Amino acid sequence: MFLQLLRDVVDGTDGGLAGILMDAQGIPVETYVRAPGGVDMAVVGAEYSVIVKSIRRAAESLDAGGAREIAIQSDKMTTLIRMLNDDYFVAVALSPDANFGKGRYLMRAAAPKLLAALA
Amino acid sequence: MFLQLLRDVVDGTDGGLAGILMDAQGIPVETYVRAPGGVDMAVVGAEYSVIVKSIRRAAESLDAGGAREIAIQSDKMTTLIRMLNDDYFVAVALSPDANFGKGRYLMRAAAPKLLAALA
Repeated sequence: MFLQLLRDVVDGTDGGLAGILMDAQGIPVETYVRAPGGVDMAVVGAEYSVIVKSIRRAAESLDAGGAREIAIQSDKMTTLIRMLNDDYFVAVALSPDANFGKGRYLMRAAAPKLLAALA
Repeated sequence: MFLQLLRDVVDGTDGGLAGILMDAQGIPVETYVRAPGGVDMAVVGAEYSVIVKSIRRAAESLDAGGAREIAIQSDKMTTLIRMLNDDYFVAVALSPDANFGKGRYLMRAAAPKLLAALA
């Protein structure tokens, strides 16, 4: 269920590399890697959870409301992170030339389904 | 010089709230607030630097290359952060309904000018 939803997002996005559903403590619930060997999702996921924690703390002290979506563009990768609720987030790694808008759209569309499956 | 460049980005973006040029240690170089009272940029800037550090560490351990641009959407604010080099970044706070694309475009256009002024 989780795997299929992650696969839909990653494979449905040109340049999609991998996707992960993870809890806020950094424990992966499900991982999908499109091209094995390309991305070590155990490492990636742990880093995502550090980023999510830091941004959540920042958003709280800013009274900016809950962080919903985080996008990070680096030289070799674009990362999209979407908070599902206080306990879980989904993250997708894209190549730099990926279809960012499509990835974001598919991730948003998958969010309520992932949430429903977590319940 | 810095102030004018920040003002161009913030005032040029519908929904632009504030902008800050900051070093990686969290020391503000220049701050521009469009609507005083709306955003406490001292607090905001310090939080930005925490986020930037956390994302830089993550990008390094991911070998993802240098993080160039970070976008964070929360309920009450959208934040755009752009690394200028290893030592400085510029951040712009936008209202949730702001023209995100215009803000990003103006920030990208201002980046080389800010870098030149820092040199």
